[in-house]
Amino acid sequence: MHFHDNRRKVDYVLAYHYRKRGAHGGHGSPSHQRAPLAVISNGEMGKEPNAAGQGDMMIEMGPLDALEEERKEQREEFERNLMEAGLELEKDLENKSQGSSFVRIHAPWQVLTREAEFLKIKVPTKKMYEIKSGGTIAKKFNEFLQKMSYPLQPRVPEHSNNKMKNLSYPFSREKLYLYNIQDKDTFFDNATRSRIVSKQKCGWQMNGVGGELFLPLHQGEYEGPEDDMNDRKLLYHEWARYGVFYKFQPIDLIRKYFGEKIGLYFAWLGLYTSFLIPSSIIGVIVFLYGCATIEDDIPSKEMCDQQNAFTMCPLCDKSCDYWNLSTACGTARASHLFDNPATVFFSVFMALWATMFLENWKRLQMRLGYFWDLTGIEEEEEHSRPEYETKVREKILKENKSLVQKMETDKTESDDEVSFLDSLVIIFSFSLLFASILFKIFIALTFSIVFGVIVYRITTAAALSLNKATRSNVRATVTATAVIINLVVILILDEIYGAVAKWLTKIEVPKTEQTFEERLILKAFLLKFVNAYSPIFYVAFFKGRFVGRPGNYVYVFDGYRMEECAPGGCLMELCIQLIPQPFQLKDETEPGETDSTQSKHPEQWDLDYSLEPYTGLTPEYMEMIIQFGFVTLFVASFPLAPVFALLNNVIEVRLDAKKFVTEVRRPDAVRTKDIGIWFDILSGIGKFSVIINAFVIAVTSDFIPRLVYQYSYSHNGTLHGFINHTLSYFNVSQLKEGTQPENSHFDQEVLFCRFKDYREPPWAPNQYEFSKQYWSVLSARLAFVIIFQNLVMFLSVLVDWMIPDIPKDISDQIKKEKSLLVDFFLKEEHEKLKLMDSAQRSQSGGEERSRKSRAASFRQSSRSQRGSYASSSSQHTDV
Amino acid sequence: MHFHDNRRKVDYVLAYHYRKRGAHGGHGSPSHQRAPLAVISNGEMGKEPNAAGQGDMMIEMGPLDALEEERKEQREEFERNLMEAGLELEKDLENKSQGSSFVRIHAPWQVLTREAEFLKIKVPTKKMYEIKSGGTIAKKFNEFLQKMSYPLQPRVPEHSNNKMKNLSYPFSREKLYLYNIQDKDTFFDNATRSRIVSKQKCGWQMNGVGGELFLPLHQGEYEGPEDDMNDRKLLYHEWARYGVFYKFQPIDLIRKYFGEKIGLYFAWLGLYTSFLIPSSIIGVIVFLYGCATIEDDIPSKEMCDQQNAFTMCPLCDKSCDYWNLSTACGTARASHLFDNPATVFFSVFMALWATMFLENWKRLQMRLGYFWDLTGIEEEEEHSRPEYETKVREKILKENKSLVQKMETDKTESDDEVSFLDSLVIIFSFSLLFASILFKIFIALTFSIVFGVIVYRITTAAALSLNKATRSNVRATVTATAVIINLVVILILDEIYGAVAKWLTKIEVPKTEQTFEERLILKAFLLKFVNAYSPIFYVAFFKGRFVGRPGNYVYVFDGYRMEECAPGGCLMELCIQLIPQPFQLKDETEPGETDSTQSKHPEQWDLDYSLEPYTGLTPEYMEMIIQFGFVTLFVASFPLAPVFALLNNVIEVRLDAKKFVTEVRRPDAVRTKDIGIWFDILSGIGKFSVIINAFVIAVTSDFIPRLVYQYSYSHNGTLHGFINHTLSYFNVSQLKEGTQPENSHFDQEVLFCRFKDYREPPWAPNQYEFSKQYWSVLSARLAFVIIFQNLVMFLSVLVDWMIPDIPKDISDQIKKEKSLLVDFFLKEEHEKLKLMDSAQRSQSGGEERSRKSRAASFRQSSRSQRGSYASSSSQHTDV
Repeated sequence: MHFHDNRRKVDYVLAYHYRKRGAHGGHGSPSHQRAPLAVISNGEMGKEPNAAGQGDMMIEMGPLDALEEERKEQREEFERNLMEAGLELEKDLENKSQGSSFVRIHAPWQVLTREAEFLKIKVPTKKMYEIKSGGTIAKKFNEFLQKMSYPLQPRVPEHSNNKMKNLSYPFSREKLYLYNIQDKDTFFDNATRSRIVSKQKCGWQMNGVGGELFLPLHQGEYEGPEDDMNDRKLLYHEWARYGVFYKFQPIDLIRKYFGEKIGLYFAWLGLYTSFLIPSSIIGVIVFLYGCATIEDDIPSKEMCDQQNAFTMCPLCDKSCDYWNLSTACGTARASHLFDNPATVFFSVFMALWATMFLENWKRLQMRLGYFWDLTGIEEEEEHSRPEYETKVREKILKENKSLVQKMETDKTESDDEVSFLDSLVIIFSFSLLFASILFKIFIALTFSIVFGVIVYRITTAAALSLNKATRSNVRATVTATAVIINLVVILILDEIYGAVAKWLTKIEVPKTEQTFEERLILKAFLLKFVNAYSPIFYVAFFKGRFVGRPGNYVYVFDGYRMEECAPGGCLMELCIQLIPQPFQLKDETEPGETDSTQSKHPEQWDLDYSLEPYTGLTPEYMEMIIQFGFVTLFVASFPLAPVFALLNNVIEVRLDAKKFVTEVRRPDAVRTKDIGIWFDILSGIGKFSVIINAFVIAVTSDFIPRLVYQYSYSHNGTLHGFINHTLSYFNVSQLKEGTQPENSHFDQEVLFCRFKDYREPPWAPNQYEFSKQYWSVLSARLAFVIIFQNLVMFLSVLVDWMIPDIPKDISDQIKKEKSLLVDFFLKEEHEKLKLMDSAQRSQSGGEERSRKSRAASFRQSSRSQRGSYASSSSQHTDV
Repeated sequence: MHFHDNRRKVDYVLAYHYRKRGAHGGHGSPSHQRAPLAVISNGEMGKEPNAAGQGDMMIEMGPLDALEEERKEQREEFERNLMEAGLELEKDLENKSQGSSFVRIHAPWQVLTREAEFLKIKVPTKKMYEIKSGGTIAKKFNEFLQKMSYPLQPRVPEHSNNKMKNLSYPFSREKLYLYNIQDKDTFFDNATRSRIVSKQKCGWQMNGVGGELFLPLHQGEYEGPEDDMNDRKLLYHEWARYGVFYKFQPIDLIRKYFGEKIGLYFAWLGLYTSFLIPSSIIGVIVFLYGCATIEDDIPSKEMCDQQNAFTMCPLCDKSCDYWNLSTACGTARASHLFDNPATVFFSVFMALWATMFLENWKRLQMRLGYFWDLTGIEEEEEHSRPEYETKVREKILKENKSLVQKMETDKTESDDEVSFLDSLVIIFSFSLLFASILFKIFIALTFSIVFGVIVYRITTAAALSLNKATRSNVRATVTATAVIINLVVILILDEIYGAVAKWLTKIEVPKTEQTFEERLILKAFLLKFVNAYSPIFYVAFFKGRFVGRPGNYVYVFDGYRMEECAPGGCLMELCIQLIPQPFQLKDETEPGETDSTQSKHPEQWDLDYSLEPYTGLTPEYMEMIIQFGFVTLFVASFPLAPVFALLNNVIEVRLDAKKFVTEVRRPDAVRTKDIGIWFDILSGIGKFSVIINAFVIAVTSDFIPRLVYQYSYSHNGTLHGFINHTLSYFNVSQLKEGTQPENSHFDQEVLFCRFKDYREPPWAPNQYEFSKQYWSVLSARLAFVIIFQNLVMFLSVLVDWMIPDIPKDISDQIKKEKSLLVDFFLKEEHEKLKLMDSAQRSQSGGEERSRKSRAASFRQSSRSQRGSYASSSSQHTDV
C-alpha cells in the first residue's frame, strides 16, 4: 500500500508486460539484489533521474526487438511526463527476462491540491451544520423507522452521524484555512486521489503506450481478522455477501470506495429492487385472486364439462384427428390464473409504477447528488477521442489531398479551415448514413432469424406429423426444439451484436468519449431488445392470428400450415415463454487463481493485477434494463414477473457486489451526476410498455370478448355459453380434398366441426365470412386500446407533474447551505483580515517585506479573479 | 429626459396622486415660483435634506386627512430609503390642491456599478471577435440570402455589423479596465438603468406606498423629424407601423428598448408567424386539391344526381317532411373541399410541424440567449410574495394561537419553528385542496353552460318548428341565435374566468411571484381553453351521434329530439364554426388623449403618465396560444386555418408593436431566459392535437368509411354506390304515432325512407340493429386512431431527438467565447501586473503609501474571492 519507504501512499499503479530478448546474460542480477527499486521521486526530477534510470537500464539492455524498444521508449516518455506533472514514481527493475512490471505512482500534496483546485473538487470545510429532517412528528416517525430498521442497516461507521453534514466548498489553495486539514495524507480520500492521478494520465496520449494497464489499488485484503478493518473488508462483510441479502446497501461507503458512477449504479439497483416489492405483492395477490376464482370461472368450467362436448376441427392436415375441446381443460384453467379482470388493474398499476419509479429515481439522484456534493459540479470538458482525430486526419489525407495542400500553403486565412471543416461534415454525414443503413440491416437480420425459427417450427411440425410414430408428441417436440434453437440463436446473436454495435459506432466516429459510449449503448440496447423480445412478440401478437380457417387455411411454402396456438389460447404459451425471462443467465466466473502465490507476502499490486479487469457498467445495466422491460412490457400476461425479478435481483445485488469487491480490479473513480442514457432508455421502455400492455390485454387475452359477450350477447348477464359463442361451425364436407383426417378414430360421426373464430356458420348466405360479432369484438378491442393508452399516458403525465423532481427538503437544504456558506466565508475572511491587520501593526514594517507581501497578495488576487471567472462561466474550462 | 440641471438622466419616475384638504391658503405659492423644484441629490444626503424637505413642506401642510397623511409618510419613508441607497431624486412641489406629482430618479454611476456587480449584469468588454457563419459555401449562401432579403431587413443600425460580437463579462468594479467605458452616462443602456432602479424599489415593501405608480420613461417622442432619431422613433418607423408589415422585426432593438422578456415574446411571435407560412402554403394546396378534384368526387356527384334520388326520413317530428338527398348537394360538394385524402397527410404534417416549431423555438431561444448574453445568468433569488407572508402570519395568528404563544416563549429552540412549518404545510395543503375543488367546479360550470346552449338549440328548434311560418328557416335561425349566444357566453365567461383564476390562485397562496404567475396562467389557460373549445368539441364529436334512429329517436326533456348535423355532415358545420376563430376579437383602444396638452412643452413624464399602464404579456400570449390551438387541434377539419392565422398574425405583430411603442407606458425591463410556462402549454397542445386530429379524421370525416367501402364492399374498387351504402332503410309505417309528417307535400308515395347510419334493413330478422358494416367501419376508425396516434407520436419523438436543442454554431461559439475570454483576461491581468511593477520600481516607496496600496489590494482580493464564491455556487445569493 505504500512505497518502499513506508511513507508515501501508492495512489495508482501502471502495469505492463515486458520482454527482454537479450536478457540471457545474468551479469546484471547482483546489482538488482543491492538496488531492487528505482525510486524516482519528484525531488530528484529534472535531467538527473532520467539519466540515472537510463544508465541503470543500459546495463541490462541487450538487443531488444524493434517493437519492444519502441514500447519501452513510449513508456519512458510517458513516465517522464508523469514526473514533470509532479507525480512521484517507484518501479521495480526488470529483473526477469519477461513478465509484468509495475510502476507505482504517488501523488504528493502539491499535485493533489493543484489538481483538486483545477477540477473544482468539493471538499468539506470546518463548518458543520445540522440537517433538518422535517417537523417534530416527521422526526419522531423517522427515528422510529430508524430504530425498527436497525437490523436492516449495514454496520458501517458512516451511518452513525448522518444528522450533521460538513459544508463543502470547491478546493482552493488560497483558502486552506477554510478546510479542516488534519492530516495531509488522509485529507483526500483514496478514490479522489486515484481520480486525480488518472486525470493526469488522460492528459497525454495513452493508446500508444505499449500494453499498459492502469489500475488504482484495492485497500488491502477483503478477508482476514475483523480487528484490522479497511473499507474493502467492511464492504465485503456488510455488503458483498449473500448472508447480508436482507440489509440495505451502504451506498455512501460504496461511493467512497468505487466512486460516484458505481455508487449510482448500486443506488439505482437498490431502488429498483425495493420498488419491485410492492409490485410483487400485488402481482401475487392478482395471481392468488386467479387461483381463488378458478372454480367460479364459467368459461373454463364449460370447457371442462364433458357433457356439452365441442367437436373441434383437426389442428393439422391429414394426420391430425378431430378432437374434443374438453381435452384442453387443463390449460384453460391454468390460463385463468393470469387472465382475469385483476390483470387489467395490475397493468394500469404497473404503468404508473414505472413512472413512479423513474420519478423517485430522479429524486434519489438529487438527494445523493446533494449528500455527495455533486450539486455544483459542472460537465467535464469533452475531450475529442483520439480515434476521432486520427480518423479526421486519415480521411482528409486520403480524400482531400489538394485541400490539405491548399491549407498548408496559406494557413493564415481562416476560410480554408472553414471549408476544411465543411468537408469533414460531409465525410461524417456519409459515414453516419452508412452506419445507420448497416444498423437497419442488422435489425432486419434479427427479424429474419426470428422468422426463420418460425418457419422451422412450421415445417418441422408438418414433417414430424407425417411420421406416425412421433405424431402424438409433435407439438412438444417442435416447441422444445424451437425454444432451444431460439435460445442458442439469441445467445449467439448477443455476442455478435455486442461486436457489431461497437463496430458500427466506430464507423460513425463520434467526437467524444461520452457520445461514443451513449451511441454504443443505444445501438447495443436496440439490437439486444429486438433479439430478446421478438420471439415473445411473435407469440403475443402474431402466432395463431393468420392461420385462415378450416377449408381455407393459409399455407406458407405450399403445404405448410401456419402455426396455431395451443387449445388453451396463446396467452398460456406467452406465459410459458416469459417465466424464465426475469432470471438472467449469468456466467459466474470463478476468481482467477493468483499468479503470484509463489511469493509469500504478495504486494497489493501483485494481488490486484491478478484479478479480472473491470469492463464497465454497461453489461450490468443492460441486464437489469432488459429485465425491467420484461417486468413492465408483459406484466399483463404474466403478473408473477415482478416476484421473479425481485428474487433474481436480491441475489443480483450481492453477486455484483461480490464481483466488484473481490473479483475485479478496482475501477477508476468516475464522478458523474446521473446514470446518463440509461434513464432515457428506461423512460422509453416505460412509455412503450403502455401500448404493449394495452394490446396484450385487448388482443391476446380473452378479457374483451368476455366483456362483450356478457353485456351484449349473454341472455342472463353471465358468461354461460361464452365458449359456444366463440366457436364457429364448419361443415366437414367442405374440407379440401387431401386434408381430411386419415382414418379418424373419433368416436362420433362428425358433420360439423368447431373452430375458434367469429365467422358465419355454413348455413348462412355468406358462409365463413367474418360475422358481426367479429367486428363488434374487434371494435371493442381497439376502443379498449385507445382508452387504456390515453388514460394511462395521462395518469403518467399527472404523476410526473405532481412529484417534484427535487425533494422539498433537499432544495431547502441546498438553499440553507448556500446562505450558511456565505456567512461562514465572510466570517473567515474577516478573521483573516483582523489577523493580518494585527500582524501589520505589531511589525514596524521593512520595505522589502511589505513589497513581498504586496506582490503576494496581488498574485493571490489575480488568481482568485481568474478562478472567479472560470467558475462563473458555468462550465469547466482549462485555464 | 433629464433633471432640471440638464445633466443627470431620468432613469425612473414615481408618480402618485395627492390630495390636499388644507391647501386653500395660497400663502405658499410665491415660494414655489422661486423654487419650483425640491432637488434632493445624493450629495446632500444624511439628515439635512430630509429636514430641509420636511421644513419646506411644513409650510404647505394644512390639516390633511388621516389616510392622506399616512400615505404621505409612507412616501417619504420610501423616498428616504431610495436616497439612502444612493439614488438621486428630483420632485415637483405639490402646488395644486390635488393632482399627480412625479418623483424622478437618477441613478448615479456608483449606484449603477454597485448594482450591476451585484446583479452580475454582463457588459461588453474591450475585446471583439468575429462570429463564424459556417463554411465558405454556407457563408456565401448566407451573404446571398442577406442580399436577397435586404428589402425585408429593418433599417436599424444594430444590423449593420452583426459579424462581430463583443466579449461580455459580468460587471465588476475591480475590473473596470476590462470594459470599454467611454462615457459613464451611456455605458449602461436605458433598459439596464431602469432595471437597476426598479430592483432598488423591490427591496422594500412596495404595497404600502399610497397609490404609487412606477414607470421607466420612454425615450422621447415616437413621431417627429427623422433627423432627431431615438430608439423609440426608430422602433416606430421600422417596426410598429402597418407599412412595414413585410419586414423582419428588429429583435435586438426591441430587446434593448423593452428588455428580454418582451423581446422574447416578439421573437416567439415572429417565429410562429414565419412557421405559419409553409403550413399556410400546404393548407392552400390541400384546399386547391379539394377544389380540383371536386368534379371527380363520386360520392358528391351521386348525391347531386337527381336520377337516383334518395328519399330521406324527416329531420324533425311532425312538422318536417320527407326530403330528397340531392337538396344537400351543395354542402356535400363544399365539404369535399376540406374532407379529402390530402387532409390526412396535412394533419400528419401539422403534428410534426408543431414539434418542429417547438424545437426551433428552443434553438432560437438559445441563439438569442447567446447574443443577448443570457447564457450565464442564474435564476433570480425567489422572494416570497408579501401576500404569502401576510397570509402565513394571519392564518397562524387565527388558528394556532397556542402554538404562537409557545413559539414566543421559547424562540431559541428550533423544534418549534419546525412544527410551526408543519402546521403551515397542513394549512396550505388544505387551501390548495379547496382551490382545486373550486377549480373543478368552474370547469364543470363551463361544460354545463355549453350543455345549456345545446339544450337551448334543441328546444328552440322544436319550438320554432311548431310555428309554420318560421319552419322553413328554422335551422338558420337556431344556428344563428345559438352562435350569438355562444359568443356572448364566451366573452362574458372570459372576463369572469380571468377574475376567477386570479382569485383561485390567491386562495392557494403560492410562495413566490413566479409560482403565482405560473399557476395563474395555467388556470386561466385551462378555463379559457374549455370555454373556447367546448362548442367546437361538441360539434366535432358529439353532435348528431346520439340521435337514435327513425322510430326510436332519443329525446331529451321528453319531446325534444337531439340535434342532427346538417345533411352535408358535421364536418361542414365544424368548418363553419372554425372559420372565424383564428381571427381574434381585438378591442383596439384609441390612445387616450394626453391630459397635459395644456402645457406647450410637456415633459416626458407627463406624456408617459398619460398613457395606458402596461398590464403584462399574459393576454398577448394567451391570445396567440388559443390561436395556436385552433391551428393545430382542428387542422384536419379546416386546412385553411393556418392561412387565416398567418393573415391575423401579420397584423397582430404590428398591432402589438404599436401598442407597446405608442400606447402604453414603458414597462420595466425584465431579464429572462425563456418564455416559461407558455412553452409547456404549447407542447401540451401539440401533444393533445395528435389525438384530436386522429379522432377528427377517423370519426368526423368520411375518410374511413370511404376507404372501407372502396376496399371491402365496392364491386369495382371505385366509390360508386358509396352513398347508397351509407344510408339505411326505414319502414315508414313503423314511425311512432304522432311523429309522422303532417300533410306531407312530398311528390311520391313513400314506403321506405333512408337515414344516414349502418343499420339492418326492415326486412332483416334483427331489423334496425347495427349492421356488420357498422362494426367493421367502427373497427377501421378505431384502428386508424391507434395507428395515427402512435405513428405521429413516434415521428414527433424522432424529430425532437434529431434536432439538437442548442444549435451547433452557437455551442461552438459559446466554447470559443469562453476560451477567448480566458486569454483576454490573462492578458489584461498580466499588463496590469506589469504596470504595477513598473510603478513600483519608479517610486522609491514610502511606507505610508505602500501600506495603503497593500490594504487596497487585500480588500480587492477578499472582495473578488467573495465574488468567486457567489458565482461558483451557481445560483444568485445575496451576499
